[in-house]
Amino acid sequence: MKSIPNETIGRLFPYIRALVCLSKQGTDTVSSSRLAEVCHVNPAMIRKDFSYFGYFGKRGVGYDVQALKEEIQNILSLKPAKKVALIGVGNIGKALLLYKNFELEGFKITMAFDNQPNKIGRKIGDVTIEDMGNLEKRVKSENIQLSILAVPETVSPTIARRLADAGVNAILSFAPCQLAMPDNIKVTCVDLSTEMARLIYYSSREDLVKKR
Amino acid sequence: MKSIPNETIGRLFPYIRALVCLSKQGTDTVSSSRLAEVCHVNPAMIRKDFSYFGYFGKRGVGYDVQALKEEIQNILSLKPAKKVALIGVGNIGKALLLYKNFELEGFKITMAFDNQPNKIGRKIGDVTIEDMGNLEKRVKSENIQLSILAVPETVSPTIARRLADAGVNAILSFAPCQLAMPDNIKVTCVDLSTEMARLIYYSSREDLVKKR
Repeated sequence: MKSIPNETIGRLFPYIRALVCLSKQGTDTVSSSRLAEVCHVNPAMIRKDFSYFGYFGKRGVGYDVQALKEEIQNILSLKPAKKVALIGVGNIGKALLLYKNFELEGFKITMAFDNQPNKIGRKIGDVTIEDMGNLEKRVKSENIQLSILAVPETVSPTIARRLADAGVNAILSFAPCQLAMPDNIKVTCVDLSTEMARLIYYSSREDLVKKR
Repeated sequence: MKSIPNETIGRLFPYIRALVCLSKQGTDTVSSSRLAEVCHVNPAMIRKDFSYFGYFGKRGVGYDVQALKEEIQNILSLKPAKKVALIGVGNIGKALLLYKNFELEGFKITMAFDNQPNKIGRKIGDVTIEDMGNLEKRVKSENIQLSILAVPETVSPTIARRLADAGVNAILSFAPCQLAMPDNIKVTCVDLSTEMARLIYYSSREDLVKKR
């Protein structure tokens, strides 16, 4: 694959999401200017980004929404959909198992684990909850690389370490504290407070600007 | 308040989270090098960031964790804790109502709304679920500016518009599609798929680098 600049890579993820939205609304083809509007970038940037992987669209027709989505998913190794192991089936875990968009975007939660006996064996969506004791064995046998951690923050470093030892190399964590996470694994923490703090700071600044 | 550069503002949010973590672990004072380690930045940058708001710490002792946290919360208008209205009490909404860290970080969900009769009147944590029909009245009377939207994506633009009309100027949304959101309100969408795509892309690139 031709080398794609880092900045373009950073913009590819939101394109997939926008294309999924457009496709759900029944849109089959999209112009670069409409796609630019949806993604809040300028059309020239979109055309430049797509030219790196040789995708130009048809003049006067625009891009084929489905084909473009699949092309970008290929570049990002999301086709076929990436298998994900979910650890912790509390309220957040349950919501994730029932979330329909993951598969459209290129992810599939194929296994879920919990340590509460009354949860093990229950089926949520397509997935049957398994015993935490089998975590390493199952993750290895299915060659899982990506995991979502939705467990209490006190146990998340321990479980992250078990996942790392079983071959997982990327974790999306809902626990807020990442002080003791293992080094040999990439961890991203979902940080709602940071997003809210940012929203508040910038929305109050905009008020100030408007009042001037 | 002295003007603080944008880049510093962007780094202030993660400092709060790190300080909350340290405080929970029983840490009262922290050196700039330890805080830098926790936040994955360099110590010189921390000292420079804090100097903008005149916070220097004590030589040989370091920063007072609690005082520094409060100082940053002040700058970001998070002291007293910012009141938040939660819309939609499904699995995600429930998890948010039971999440203990918000208040430590400067947020407090003070009201929650749903349209399902069997949920209205139920109490989760400290909050009693209210009828969606009273949304505008209650949000106005409490002068709420920030809201979390945890409703199905089909209704989220409509509810966002109702919130905007009631005076809310910032929304954190769990619905993936923001095509039809009102313009007069700042909306941030929690985008788990984008985070996962980024994790996969960069963790596989690191593998390539290691194998060379």
